[in-house]
Amino acid sequence: VELVRIGVDIGGTKTDAVVIGDETVLMQRARSVTGFGSQAVVETAVSAISHVASLAGTPVAGFDSIGIGIPGMVDGHTGGVRHAVNLGFDALELGAELQSRLGVRVQVENDVKAAALGAYHLLGLASSMAYLNLGTGLAAGIVVDGELWRGARATAGEIGHIPVDPNGLSCPCGQRGCLETVASGSGIARQWPTEDPHPVRDVFRAARAGDAAAMRIRGSLADGVASAVRILVLTADVETVVIGGGLSHLGEELMVEVRAVLTTWAESSLFLASLDLPSRMRVTPENTPAAAIGAALIGAV
Amino acid sequence: VELVRIGVDIGGTKTDAVVIGDETVLMQRARSVTGFGSQAVVETAVSAISHVASLAGTPVAGFDSIGIGIPGMVDGHTGGVRHAVNLGFDALELGAELQSRLGVRVQVENDVKAAALGAYHLLGLASSMAYLNLGTGLAAGIVVDGELWRGARATAGEIGHIPVDPNGLSCPCGQRGCLETVASGSGIARQWPTEDPHPVRDVFRAARAGDAAAMRIRGSLADGVASAVRILVLTADVETVVIGGGLSHLGEELMVEVRAVLTTWAESSLFLASLDLPSRMRVTPENTPAAAIGAALIGAV
Repeated sequence: VELVRIGVDIGGTKTDAVVIGDETVLMQRARSVTGFGSQAVVETAVSAISHVASLAGTPVAGFDSIGIGIPGMVDGHTGGVRHAVNLGFDALELGAELQSRLGVRVQVENDVKAAALGAYHLLGLASSMAYLNLGTGLAAGIVVDGELWRGARATAGEIGHIPVDPNGLSCPCGQRGCLETVASGSGIARQWPTEDPHPVRDVFRAARAGDAAAMRIRGSLADGVASAVRILVLTADVETVVIGGGLSHLGEELMVEVRAVLTTWAESSLFLASLDLPSRMRVTPENTPAAAIGAALIGAV
Repeated sequence: VELVRIGVDIGGTKTDAVVIGDETVLMQRARSVTGFGSQAVVETAVSAISHVASLAGTPVAGFDSIGIGIPGMVDGHTGGVRHAVNLGFDALELGAELQSRLGVRVQVENDVKAAALGAYHLLGLASSMAYLNLGTGLAAGIVVDGELWRGARATAGEIGHIPVDPNGLSCPCGQRGCLETVASGSGIARQWPTEDPHPVRDVFRAARAGDAAAMRIRGSLADGVASAVRILVLTADVETVVIGGGLSHLGEELMVEVRAVLTTWAESSLFLASLDLPSRMRVTPENTPAAAIGAALIGAV
């Protein structure tokens, strides 16, 4: 009997819902706008689930599992979500609310961790992987032998707040020189004030046009991403680092910069060269709902 | 029936051999001087094993397992050791040589990884742990749920070569500002030229006497150790970080400095404060042969 699962990725602006079958085959997909505030987020999830279920021609109660990925601190056991700043709430018992509304067990996970599991399956990886999410913030999700590796206190992969420069920029976390200050959307927006809704794209445009400040910001972004890859490999020794998140949509233009940094490093360090970092780096497949698929897989646990 | 195991820690100067019973109870221990060069190292191991076996009143063939911990790159499958610079050889099929000499299966592991497993058991830990070895170099061994976590390419925990300061000291690995340049015996020896065979102790003595350069070196050592703890928790999220290795013999004097750094950091960052780093740090029990006991446990796998 084929298992059918629903996965929902609740993002800051958009919500992505999918139905997947066995072997994580994508069967249906539906996108909607995310509401703001705790009740609007619950409504968004309920509509997204009902909609994608109707596309599949199956009542919600007929699905084997439902999983949700959402930005914020998630308690996987209770399905509670805290500090979802971009969604406009500080605390929400999302799992319990959805279960009572839908009559089906719902599993909730942090969106980066969900995307990590989704990317691992979409790329057909084995062994271990870190999914390096370059979004508003910088964080990684770690997957070992097909399972999420959460760590002892659920902070595994929170490398955005590792400082790598004592004279670096100050970080809202209270430290200085954190990776997130140079290699994230928020970090770049602080360095490049603009009316453009996509500051990072604007920086890349200006850098291409030869603007010195933009070239410096683009350079420190590439350095930061390369440092993140190095930290993930030297600490957790994951076989593959997959780059994802909003900034990964810069695509090859970003990856070329990051590979150039890693290659330069390897030229001056046999030790780094032996780690073979450029060839261990991958990019999330474009236009695939990694986080929603990962959420569906988490729901299945 | 009680299992009896032999574990041997082959160090740069001394070799420590133990016999342990069930529940890792230490039954016998013998120390000897390590020979220099591949054949001398094999002879050292054979004598240490024969000696500790005779102390236990059991022929070598009567033991359930034999494990060896040794500095260098170890292939756990073949028992081959490479790049054992401090022991005077570049390549040695240690496992195979010992098995043919002793007629018993011998398991070989890197000494820091062996010490990690030993410390985990000696401290009665559960969940996950990183053993941060502050010796000639700086590296960590990671244990999750009682098992060594080697990573995809056996570089898990090689955090000594993570740079944390772009303007830091140059490192023999070819990079700049690596943790090892400030938080290891070799790193401190390069900063503090002295005839004293224990440069780190000499630095601490001079720092106590008010020497400004020594106080700066001691400060950067404490910063480096604290940074290593932060990296291990934010990447691998181990519950506990155990400080071990030659520099850990500085004991409370070093730990006071490191705790002070972590406490200062927590005062300016709620995020860091939430990680509770000072209370997650432990020191290896003094005068216990953690690496030899860990080697015995590895032999048992």
